[in-house]
Amino acid sequence: MSSGKSYNVGILGATGTVGQRFISLLATHPEFKVHALGASARSAGKPYPSAVKWKMSSPIPKCVQEMTVHVCDPKYFEGCHFVFSGLDSDVAGEIEKAFQDADIPVFSNAKNYRMAPAVPLIVPTVNTSHFDVIPQQRALYNTKKGFIVTNANCSTTGLTVPLKALQDAFGPLDKIAVQTMQAISGAGYPGVSSLDILDNVVPFISGEEDKLETEPLKILGSVGSDGASFQELSQTTISAHCNRVPVLDGHLECVSLSFHQKPAPTPEQVIEVLEKYTCEAQALGCYSAPEKAIVYDPSSDRPQPRLDRDNCKGQTVTVGRVRKCNIFDIKFTLLVHNTILGAAGSGILNAEVAAAKGLFD
Amino acid sequence: MSSGKSYNVGILGATGTVGQRFISLLATHPEFKVHALGASARSAGKPYPSAVKWKMSSPIPKCVQEMTVHVCDPKYFEGCHFVFSGLDSDVAGEIEKAFQDADIPVFSNAKNYRMAPAVPLIVPTVNTSHFDVIPQQRALYNTKKGFIVTNANCSTTGLTVPLKALQDAFGPLDKIAVQTMQAISGAGYPGVSSLDILDNVVPFISGEEDKLETEPLKILGSVGSDGASFQELSQTTISAHCNRVPVLDGHLECVSLSFHQKPAPTPEQVIEVLEKYTCEAQALGCYSAPEKAIVYDPSSDRPQPRLDRDNCKGQTVTVGRVRKCNIFDIKFTLLVHNTILGAAGSGILNAEVAAAKGLFD
Amino acid sequence: MSSGKSYNVGILGATGTVGQRFISLLATHPEFKVHALGASARSAGKPYPSAVKWKMSSPIPKCVQEMTVHVCDPKYFEGCHFVFSGLDSDVAGEIEKAFQDADIPVFSNAKNYRMAPAVPLIVPTVNTSHFDVIPQQRALYNTKKGFIVTNANCSTTGLTVPLKALQDAFGPLDKIAVQTMQAISGAGYPGVSSLDILDNVVPFISGEEDKLETEPLKILGSVGSDGASFQELSQTTISAHCNRVPVLDGHLECVSLSFHQKPAPTPEQVIEVLEKYTCEAQALGCYSAPEKAIVYDPSSDRPQPRLDRDNCKGQTVTVGRVRKCNIFDIKFTLLVHNTILGAAGSGILNAEVAAAKGLFD
Amino acid sequence: MSSGKSYNVGILGATGTVGQRFISLLATHPEFKVHALGASARSAGKPYPSAVKWKMSSPIPKCVQEMTVHVCDPKYFEGCHFVFSGLDSDVAGEIEKAFQDADIPVFSNAKNYRMAPAVPLIVPTVNTSHFDVIPQQRALYNTKKGFIVTNANCSTTGLTVPLKALQDAFGPLDKIAVQTMQAISGAGYPGVSSLDILDNVVPFISGEEDKLETEPLKILGSVGSDGASFQELSQTTISAHCNRVPVLDGHLECVSLSFHQKPAPTPEQVIEVLEKYTCEAQALGCYSAPEKAIVYDPSSDRPQPRLDRDNCKGQTVTVGRVRKCNIFDIKFTLLVHNTILGAAGSGILNAEVAAAKGLFD
Repeated sequence: MSSGKSYNVGILGATGTVGQRFISLLATHPEFKVHALGASARSAGKPYPSAVKWKMSSPIPKCVQEMTVHVCDPKYFEGCHFVFSGLDSDVAGEIEKAFQDADIPVFSNAKNYRMAPAVPLIVPTVNTSHFDVIPQQRALYNTKKGFIVTNANCSTTGLTVPLKALQDAFGPLDKIAVQTMQAISGAGYPGVSSLDILDNVVPFISGEEDKLETEPLKILGSVGSDGASFQELSQTTISAHCNRVPVLDGHLECVSLSFHQKPAPTPEQVIEVLEKYTCEAQALGCYSAPEKAIVYDPSSDRPQPRLDRDNCKGQTVTVGRVRKCNIFDIKFTLLVHNTILGAAGSGILNAEVAAAKGLFD
Repeated sequence: MSSGKSYNVGILGATGTVGQRFISLLATHPEFKVHALGASARSAGKPYPSAVKWKMSSPIPKCVQEMTVHVCDPKYFEGCHFVFSGLDSDVAGEIEKAFQDADIPVFSNAKNYRMAPAVPLIVPTVNTSHFDVIPQQRALYNTKKGFIVTNANCSTTGLTVPLKALQDAFGPLDKIAVQTMQAISGAGYPGVSSLDILDNVVPFISGEEDKLETEPLKILGSVGSDGASFQELSQTTISAHCNRVPVLDGHLECVSLSFHQKPAPTPEQVIEVLEKYTCEAQALGCYSAPEKAIVYDPSSDRPQPRLDRDNCKGQTVTVGRVRKCNIFDIKFTLLVHNTILGAAGSGILNAEVAAAKGLFD
Repeated sequence: MSSGKSYNVGILGATGTVGQRFISLLATHPEFKVHALGASARSAGKPYPSAVKWKMSSPIPKCVQEMTVHVCDPKYFEGCHFVFSGLDSDVAGEIEKAFQDADIPVFSNAKNYRMAPAVPLIVPTVNTSHFDVIPQQRALYNTKKGFIVTNANCSTTGLTVPLKALQDAFGPLDKIAVQTMQAISGAGYPGVSSLDILDNVVPFISGEEDKLETEPLKILGSVGSDGASFQELSQTTISAHCNRVPVLDGHLECVSLSFHQKPAPTPEQVIEVLEKYTCEAQALGCYSAPEKAIVYDPSSDRPQPRLDRDNCKGQTVTVGRVRKCNIFDIKFTLLVHNTILGAAGSGILNAEVAAAKGLFD
Repeated sequence: MSSGKSYNVGILGATGTVGQRFISLLATHPEFKVHALGASARSAGKPYPSAVKWKMSSPIPKCVQEMTVHVCDPKYFEGCHFVFSGLDSDVAGEIEKAFQDADIPVFSNAKNYRMAPAVPLIVPTVNTSHFDVIPQQRALYNTKKGFIVTNANCSTTGLTVPLKALQDAFGPLDKIAVQTMQAISGAGYPGVSSLDILDNVVPFISGEEDKLETEPLKILGSVGSDGASFQELSQTTISAHCNRVPVLDGHLECVSLSFHQKPAPTPEQVIEVLEKYTCEAQALGCYSAPEKAIVYDPSSDRPQPRLDRDNCKGQTVTVGRVRKCNIFDIKFTLLVHNTILGAAGSGILNAEVAAAKGLFD
C-alpha cells in the first residue's frame, strides 16, 4: 500500500460488535476512510452515536460521530470503493449478494459465502493467493467490479496460521486435534449471559466444531487449475472440541498434530519454522500487516489471552509450549485475538492486500 | 459400612484447602469422628478457628471449634484409627512415613507415595481392588497395622472413572488425548493470583500433564501375581494439555480416545456402558459412595462446572457430549469436582471401603 | 407451623429465575406441595423439563419432573391453597389480580402491588405484623379468601432487617446512606450480558435506587388505625447508590446511618442489638425461619458474598464491620442472599407465617 | 515541557507492579529516559527480563531489555536526574531517605512520607502548587538538590480531582461520604488470591479507609505562610467504605457530598464546573497531562471500569451520574485508573511539572 491511494469504505452491520471493531480499527487508518454506515431498519436514520450501544474500551471515533446510519441498501453506499460486512448470518446472505450485484466489493465476516463457488475464504496472513479467483468470480456472477471475499471463523483463523507455516515447510499435515477455549466477545452482544459463564465453562458452541474441522481444508488448499475452484486438502483430518470460557477477548487453542513426513520434524525444527514464517501481506507492505505473522513465545506458561492478545496489535498468532506428543508428533498452544485477526482485522488486512493487488482499480 | 462401627480420625494439614474440605465433609459423617488435627509448627497450640484462614462457604463445623491444632507427630494422634493427609508434598513424605511406622494408617492426597512400591493409588469408584496389596505392604514396610493409601491427582481421578467403565466393557484402550480446564481451587490457598486468572486462562500447570499421562496407567492396571506390585497398562497411551481457567471448583476435561477393539463401539454403546457402570464402593454400601459413579447428561452443552460439580454430592463424574471423532473413535467431555472426588472425597470414600474390608480391625 | 397441615401451592412464572428458585426451595418443604405450574403461552402444554432452561446448580426436583406447564389462568390452579408469583412486572399486574379475584391468595415477588392500598409489603423477618390488614384488604377488593401479599425488592429486604432491629431498640432512625454491590442473578436470565460485567462494575440498576429509598419506609412503618393503610416512616430519609458487580448471588450493602436519639448508641450497643434480634417467624416456629434473623460476624473483612450468602440457608442477613462513622453515627456492611431471602425465600416464609396465622383457613 | 530537555531517570522497585507500570509508561516518553533500575538484592545483578515476572499486557519495552538490575543504593543511580519509587512501604522509608540525602530527587508512590513535614503530597491534576515547599524542604533536610515528592493513594487521587474543582467553584466542602469498589491491581502481585475474589467482593482493604479520610485534607489544603507546612482543610469531613471487587484496573467510587454554601449548587452547576475544570499541568503543556482533567459522561450507567479507565490514557478522572441526594446535596460516581493516574502516572506527571518549574536545574 505504498500507492498512497485513498479509499472510501462502507460498513454493513455497523452497530454490532464486529462493526464497532471495524470502526475502531479504521479510525486511524491512513488509506481507508469510513464513508457510509449500514445497519437494520431500527437504526436507520439515527446518528451513529444514538443508534449504537458502544462497547469498545475507547470512545466512539470522531469520524463517525456525525454520520447517519442507513439500511444496508447499495444505493446508500454509492461513493464506497468497497464495504466491510459484520452482518449476522441470518441477513448477510441477501444483503451481501445485493452489494456484489451492485458492483461494490464485499469483505465479509459472515459465514454465508465461505464455502460458495469461486468465493475465496482468506486468512490474510495465510492464503492471499486465493485472490486469484476474483476474475473468475466476476465472470461467474456476471459483475464488473463486484465480488465477495470472506474471512474465516475466528478459531479457524488462529489455527491456520501455524498450520500454513508447517505445511509449507514439512509437507502435508496428517491429523490435527484441536481444543479451543474461546472468549465471550466471539458471541457478540448481548451474546453470552453472565449467569452462564461466571465461575463456569460452557463446553459447546453451536456450529463451531464443524467450521473448525472444515474451513482450514479450503484455506490451506490451493486454487484449482480452472482458476475458479478450490482444491481442498485431502490428506488432512481435523477434530475439534470447542469451549466458551470467561475471557473477554482472545481464543486459546491446544493443538496436537502429526505429519505425513517421517521422521517427523522435532519441536526445535517446528519452532524454527514458526519463527521464520512470513506472509504476502507483509511483503506487500500492508499497513495492518503484523510485524510478525507468528510470535513464538518460549516461556513455559504462554500464550495467555490477557497478556498476549494484543501482540502486534492483535494481527498475529502467538504460539507457545511447542513440545513432543505421546500420540501425535508435536503439540502446542496458540492464541488469536478473535475480534481483530479473528474478525474485523482480517477483513481490513484482506482489503489492503486486495488494494495492493489492484482489485479495486 | 453397615457395621455401625465408629472410627476416630486425624487430619494432617488441617488448615490447608484440602484439610478444610476434609473437615467440612466429615462434619456430618455418621461413622468417622474428627479426633485430632495436625498442621505446621506455626499453627500448633492454637485453637483451630484461630489457626485456620477458613475459606469454605459453610461455617467452621462445631466438632472442631474447640479443638487444638498439633504438629504432625504421631504421638498427638494416638487415639486415631487412621489419618487423612492433606499435606503439601514438600513435607508429606517424611510425616506420612512416620505415621505408617507408628501403625496409624494414612489416606494421603499428596503425590509423594503415589508411585511407591506396594502403595496403592486408588480412585474409590475405580480400583478398590488394589487394597489387596495392603498385607504385602505391611510386610514390606514391617508394620502391624500401618499402611499408606494414596488417592490420585484431581484430573487423573476424573479421567479414570469413565475409562474404567469403557475398559471393562470394550477391552484395552489404545490412545487417549485429554485437555483439561482446571479450577483455581486445585492450586490451594493463596494459590493462583487473581491478576493471573481474571479475564485469562493459563495454559500450564506445573507437573500436571505428567501425572495425567502416567497415574491412570497404574490405577487402571491390576495387582501383580506377587500381591505387592502393580501391572501398569502397556497397551494404552495418554497425551495431555492442562490449563487453568477462572472457575472456583470443578475440572472439565475434553477427551478423545480410540479402542484396540475393532470395530470400535458406537457412541450409543459407549453411553449405555457409562450409564450402567457401578463400583465396589456402591456395592459395599459406603456412606459417601455416589448414587451413580458416572452421571451421563444427554444435553448438548453439559457438563458445566457451576451447574454440575455438585451432582451426587461431588462424588460422581459427569459425562456429556459423547460423539464420534474424526481422528479417534469417540470423544466426550467430563467434569469432576476437584476438591471432593478429586481430593478429600476420594480419601474419605477410600477409608470407608477400607473399613468395610476390615483393614482397620 | 406445628399444625402439620399440608398445602397445595401453585407457582406463577415457574420457568423464570425466581420461579426456579421457588421450585428448588419447595422440593423438600414439609408442608407445601407444588401442585400447579404457570408460565407464558409459549411454555404452556409442555412438560416442565422441556419448558424450562434450568439454571439452578441442583437438578430439577422430581416433584415437578412430570408436571405440565399451564398459562397463568386461575382455572388451572383450582386445587391450590395459594400461589407464589415470580412473574415479571410487565405481566404480573393483571394476572395477580385475576388470582386474587378468584379467591386464590398470591405471594408476589413482583413490584406491581408493593405500594397498593391495603396490600402489605412484607419482609418475613421484619414486619409480619402487617398481615393484620388482610381482612380489610379482602373487604376492599371484595374477596372471600383472595388477597395479595408482596415481598420487597432484594436490596430493600437486606437493608430493612438490621434497620428494624435498630429502630426497635433505639427509636426512629434519622438518615441512612446505602451503597449496594448487587449480584447478577438479581437481573434474571439472560439478564446481564457477560460483556457488560466481566472485569467490570455497572454503577446503575434501573429503578433500584428509588425502591431502596421508598420501600423501607413502608416496611418499617406501622399499620394505620383503620387497619387498612400503612403509616410510613416520616422521620427517616434514605439515599442510595446501586451498582451491579460480577458476583453470582448475594447483594452486599455498605450502610451509614444516624439516629434521632442522642447520644447515639455505640458500635458495641449496636452489635448487641443485632445479635439479640429475633422475629415473629421464628417465634411461630416456621419451617423456613432462619436460626438467626441477623448473623453478626466480628471478622474484619466479612461479610463476603461467596462465603456468607448461604448462612442460615440464605434466610438471614449477615452484618459485619460495625464501627463509628465520621459523618453519621455508625456504619456497617451487610449481605443478603438476593434470590433466597431477597426473593423466593421471602415469599415462602411469608406464606408459612400466613399459614400459622390461619389466613388460609 | 516545551524546553526540549532530556532527563535520565531511575526506577526503584522496578520489578514490582508499580515499577512495571512506570517502565511501560516511560517506554515512549519524549523527555524521560530510563537510565537505571533498582530492586531487591534477590534481583540485583540480573538482566531485567530475568529479574521480573512481567505482567503488563504489552511486552517488556526494548529500552530495558538489556539493562541490569541493581540494589537500591544511590551509587548505582549517579547519572539520574531523579528517580521514581514504586517501593513497598516496608523498605521505602530508608531507601528514599538515602536518595534524598544523595541529592537525587525522589517521586514516590509509597505512603511513608505522605504526611511528613515539608513533603508535598501531590495529585498532579490538583495541587501542583504544593511544589512551592521544595526550597524549604531542602533547607529542612539539608540537601542541595535532593527532595521527596509523594503521590497519593490511588483512591484518594480519584476523589480529590472533582473535589478540587467543586471547592474552587463553590467554596469549602462540608461532608463527603465515599464508598469505593477497587480493582485487584491495587494490591500488587501476587496480591489478592483468586479464591478470595472470584464470584466475590471483599468489603475491607487494610489501612485504605484511613488514607481516604485523611490524605484529601492535606492535598486540598494550602501551603502555610512559612512555605514549609500545609494547612489541612478544617471544615471538611470524609467518611469511607472501601471494597475490593473482581476488576483488573480502575477504582470506582460512589460519592455523596454537601457544601457549606447554601443554597447548594444544583447538579447542572456541578456538571458545568466539572466540565470546565483545568489544571496547571495542562497549562504547562506537560506531555502526560490529560486532554481533560475530568471527563464528564452524561450516560445513565457510566463510568464503568472496563470501558472508561483508559480515557485520556488513564490520566483523567471520569465522572457520571451527577444527581441530587436525599441526604447530602449531590451525589455522583467517579472512576480513576488506579495504576496510571492513581500511581505511576501521577509520579511521572508530577516529575514533568517539576521539570517545567525548573526544580531539577
